Parts: sequence; structure tokens; C-alpha cells
Amino acid sequence: MISFNVRLKELVNQKKSWLCVGLDISSEALSNNDIANLKDHAFKVIDATRDFAVAYKPNFGFFERYGAVGFAWLEEIVSYIGSNHITIADAKRGDIGNTADQYAKSIFDHFGFDSVTLNPYMGSDSLMPFLDNREKGSFILCRTSNKSAKELQDIDINGIPLYLKVAKFINELNFNDNVGMVVGATAPDELTQIRKITPDLPILIPGVGAQGGDLAQSLKAGNHSGIGLINISRGISFVGDMSEMSIHSAAQSYVKQMREILF
Amino acid sequence: MISFNVRLKELVNQKKSWLCVGLDISSEALSNNDIANLKDHAFKVIDATRDFAVAYKPNFGFFERYGAVGFAWLEEIVSYIGSNHITIADAKRGDIGNTADQYAKSIFDHFGFDSVTLNPYMGSDSLMPFLDNREKGSFILCRTSNKSAKELQDIDINGIPLYLKVAKFINELNFNDNVGMVVGATAPDELTQIRKITPDLPILIPGVGAQGGDLAQSLKAGNHSGIGLINISRGISFVGDMSEMSIHSAAQSYVKQMREILF
Repeated sequence: MISFNVRLKELVNQKKSWLCVGLDISSEALSNNDIANLKDHAFKVIDATRDFAVAYKPNFGFFERYGAVGFAWLEEIVSYIGSNHITIADAKRGDIGNTADQYAKSIFDHFGFDSVTLNPYMGSDSLMPFLDNREKGSFILCRTSNKSAKELQDIDINGIPLYLKVAKFINELNFNDNVGMVVGATAPDELTQIRKITPDLPILIPGVGAQGGDLAQSLKAGNHSGIGLINISRGISFVGDMSEMSIHSAAQSYVKQMREILF
Repeated sequence: MISFNVRLKELVNQKKSWLCVGLDISSEALSNNDIANLKDHAFKVIDATRDFAVAYKPNFGFFERYGAVGFAWLEEIVSYIGSNHITIADAKRGDIGNTADQYAKSIFDHFGFDSVTLNPYMGSDSLMPFLDNREKGSFILCRTSNKSAKELQDIDINGIPLYLKVAKFINELNFNDNVGMVVGATAPDELTQIRKITPDLPILIPGVGAQGGDLAQSLKAGNHSGIGLINISRGISFVGDMSEMSIHSAAQSYVKQMREILF
């Protein structure tokens, strides 16, 4: 049985791309409140980027906002993406074991995602139900891309920031070769430090584009011997006139830059 | 406009109860896979405990497991509980501001919950969208009830454990009088330390019963000048023969113990 990390690495090498397309389809960005139009746009984004994307990352908040209707839409999305790409449930779940069991059943069994994002604050027993299955991946938050990330994550512990302690902690959870981490593109120095501790873990890097992170810097810092995924959400889904052609061109342009640096 | 914390305090004093009924209705505990039966049982738990409960806390994992069908059930649950009790969305959300906005819209506007549980790891900008509305409450994770909680939360920072740093951080977020914290009953010494830092914040205390926390100890440590909510899930929902009478008796017995100690 092939592990999640091997499958991801093979797909990255085969497609010569680190592109993860984030699906944060909001009515505000689309200037449209009709869920049928939001759905059409999400399908358009997927179709326009299939050649370039390694992974798709639906962001749960944007679906949960519509309750049961939003979750039905999310079910459709996962099925529409199909099995030629990696799906990442951007859910940032983290709860006691008994509840984490239920979230793992939701994300892996019910929705059928290949992987998930998780929050480490509650410790290893809150993560274990997701790590049991070697074929399913978990990207655990390490150093996030938002401005306030530093408030807790940079707390100094005898000269070592908390996020590096967390990086070590995450590294030790990779006994099934199915663990990665989330490190924001807005923190390139932190990314470089984290890469030294975890040379082989896949890193999911959000924050390029709308949040201000630099693509080339993230690729160089994240590359080492492991692999990374660069998530682009708003910079692809809502680019230019939001036509299939604009979206296709934006994805192509990002992947071209990746190939120049990485492959 | 009355703040969430004032509303909670008034309800606690009026009902002379700290009881929060956790709704973690699982097919395993009920030995029944039919969602219609799970629904009936959830409604039975609510009806049998209305006289004693201050709050109801549906645990999102147990609904998300069923995808859109589960979320439709959750919509029904919130409406069934009505407005005479406090509703707590046990969702433990935490994400960048742009996404946190969506989660706040989901939980407060779409589902209509009065309050939510949140994870502090990403810092204040990930929490702000939930704190804006004075009438809606946020219980932020501080020291959780699970065994692995200590792995990160107890990390020593120049003699102070991380969870106490987090307690201070949470205390500073209470500018709208609508913030509480989550501290597990399985950590009574930690609860005592936290109470010294945050005498006035409501504390949501899970972990009594199935997880091994002691009720009397939690009430005494949590009481100070603030208020707490003791969450009981499995110890009420799946007690005895799971009849309405068994559930009613269990809730009554918990509240009787609370009244002996607190009121």
C-alpha cells in the first residue's frame, strides 16, 4: 500500500508542479449571492486548472457558511475533482480522540478526501485518528501565514520559538509516512528554519498572493530534499475577469515560475 | 445590548445550575446506525434535561460525520433547543481572518448558535471575527481535558507553562465581555492556577464522567468570582437504559450536586 507522502511526491514529479488550488469561493469575491453561481464558478476553476494543479484544497469555512446546503456542495466538489488529483480538506480540525475519530470519519470516509489540515494545540491523541491510515495525509499547522501567528507560535522557549518545537513534534508523528505541515509563505525565515528540522516532510505553503507571500522565496526555502505545495486561492479563482481563460492563464503562469526554479 | 457573559451569568443564577449538556450522539454509543434513531435520541436528551440545563453543546464532529445530512440534523437541533437555553457550537474553529469570517457567519448567522469553542494557536486575528458581536460568546481552548494536552500546553516558558500564557492572552480578548475559556476537569490543579489569572471569565469545563474528571473538585476550583459550565455528554446521553427517565434522573443528580456546593 503506497503511503500518502509517496503518492504526493510521485504526482508532483509527474506533473512538474507544486500547485495547490485553494477553493475559497465566496459570494463577496464573486459579487454574487446565488449558490448556483458559486457552484458554477467552483467547477469552472477546477476545469481551468486540471492540467497544472497537483492538489485542490476546499476551504471548509466557505462551505459551512451555507450549512447543509454548503456541505452538499462540498460533497459534489470532491466528486467533481475525481481521483487524478490530491484533495486536501482545509478544515484545521483538532479535538479529543473520541471526537477526532468522528472528524476523521467525516473527512476521509464520508467526504472521501485524501488529506486534511489539523491544529496541533491539543497534542498527539487529537491527531492519531487521522494518522492511522497510511494512504491518508495530514498537514499539521506549524507556522501560519496570518499576522497574529507570532503571538503564540513565536513564543520564546529558552531560545527556541514554539513553532520549531511544534515542527519537531510534527516530525515525530510521521511514522506512517503520511504527515506534512503548514507553513505560511509570509514567514520565509521561519520556513527556512523549519526545513532544517524537517527536510523530508511535505510542506503546504499558503499565503502567496493576496496575503503577500513571495512565490520564488517560498519555493527556494521550502525545497530542500522534501517537497512542498504552494496554495493559491484568490490569485487563481478570482483573477482578472474571472473567465476560464483568465484562470487557466494564471495557473499556467504560476506553474511556469515553479518549473523555472524547481525542475 | 446585554453581553453574552452577562446573559450566561443571569441564566446560571436563575436556574441554579452549571449544567451544559453535550450532544455527542454517536451510532456506536447508541448501537444503532439509523440517523432517524440518532435524531430521536438527541431530541429525547434535550426534552429530558430542559429543566436542569443552562446550555446545550452540540459537538460538530458527530454531525459532520454524516456530511450534508448531518448538518441538516444540526440545523434542526439548534431550532429544537430554542431560545431559553444557551447554545454552544463545539467546533474548535481557528483560521486566518478571511476564513474565520466565514466560520463566524456559519455558526452565528446560519446555524444561529449563541456561542462557539475556538482554538487559539493562530492568534488574535483568527479569533476577532467571533468577538465582534457582544451578544455572541467564544470559549477559547486553554488547558484541554485529553491526556496529550500536556505535550504542547504544558511546555515550560521560563517557569510558566504555555497554558497560563494562553490564559492571559484569552483574558485580554474579553473587551466585549463575551469571552470564556475551556479548561478540562481532568486538570484540577491547572484549573486552579488559571482561575487566579482569570477570576471573572466563564469557564467551560468538559471531562467530567467518561473522561475521569471529578465534579466536586471542578466546581470548587472553577468557582471563584466567575462562573463555569460543567459539560456532561456521555454521562447523560447514554446513561442507564437510555430512557427519558434515566436521562432526566442523571441530569437532576448532577444539578443537585452542583447546588449543594455552589448555591
